[in-house]
Amino acid sequence: MQGSDCVDEERFKVRKLEISDKKKGFVELLQQLTVCDAVSDKDFEERFQELAACGDEHVICVIEDDQTGKIVATGSVFIEKKFVRNCGKVGHIEDVVVDSSVRGMQLGKKIVGFLTDHACSMGCYKVILDCSDENRPFYEKCGYKQKSVQMAKYFV
Amino acid sequence: MQGSDCVDEERFKVRKLEISDKKKGFVELLQQLTVCDAVSDKDFEERFQELAACGDEHVICVIEDDQTGKIVATGSVFIEKKFVRNCGKVGHIEDVVVDSSVRGMQLGKKIVGFLTDHACSMGCYKVILDCSDENRPFYEKCGYKQKSVQMAKYFV
Repeated sequence: MQGSDCVDEERFKVRKLEISDKKKGFVELLQQLTVCDAVSDKDFEERFQELAACGDEHVICVIEDDQTGKIVATGSVFIEKKFVRNCGKVGHIEDVVVDSSVRGMQLGKKIVGFLTDHACSMGCYKVILDCSDENRPFYEKCGYKQKSVQMAKYFV
Repeated sequence: MQGSDCVDEERFKVRKLEISDKKKGFVELLQQLTVCDAVSDKDFEERFQELAACGDEHVICVIEDDQTGKIVATGSVFIEKKFVRNCGKVGHIEDVVVDSSVRGMQLGKKIVGFLTDHACSMGCYKVILDCSDENRPFYEKCGYKQKSVQMAKYFV
């Protein structure tokens, strides 16, 4: 616990992504995670609307730094509907990233907590995510346990 | 390669899940994968329609044994829309299972190939899946490589 926790609570609030967040550095933040070239306003709006149409089934959350007006953390979760587990649902967390300038302030934990709570409130029986070996301790602190291995096939 | 490959090609065809597959052992097949109690016709139909409404964004495929009329293999893939990778898409493969009586006949490979091709045709830049260490060699034969680790948090 840091002495500045109360101040941080006010400064860094988690909320859902808004279309105006593109101007607040949302895409640049994603560039710290993976390949993400500049996205045109048109492409951004199109994808934003597609995801918004999914409602609570696909949520992207962000933290805006109240002092600078910049988006400094984000993550997403989508809800998969299954037949197994009595027609159960699973939350998939993706694309969690915290701006390098504000790491160590528990913002990642805040994002993962928000997304996990959302999946729980949607009736999921579990939430899953993939991460590097390096990030495993962070997710363990968030209450996650290693389950299996992730395999990938790239087309490009 | 087996001498019976041509025969098998006719006998085991991959197609999309149909609502009548419940009577052909689809749920019993899933029970070989994980916890999946008996599903009522009403619950099955409801979930089937919810998934059907997603169209090509969420596909469940099956193999019906032409000789017995039983569903002997299945798998699913859903398409996640992202902002990263220039508003890219990722295919997520889930719930792949082959009936214990017909294992070793390359049906799993057929299912994974079908789902992977679907994701590719939908414009995904990659397909990912989670599996046990034990099943890694199988997915490597399907062209997948280990990427990272899967973490999970269970609510029930």
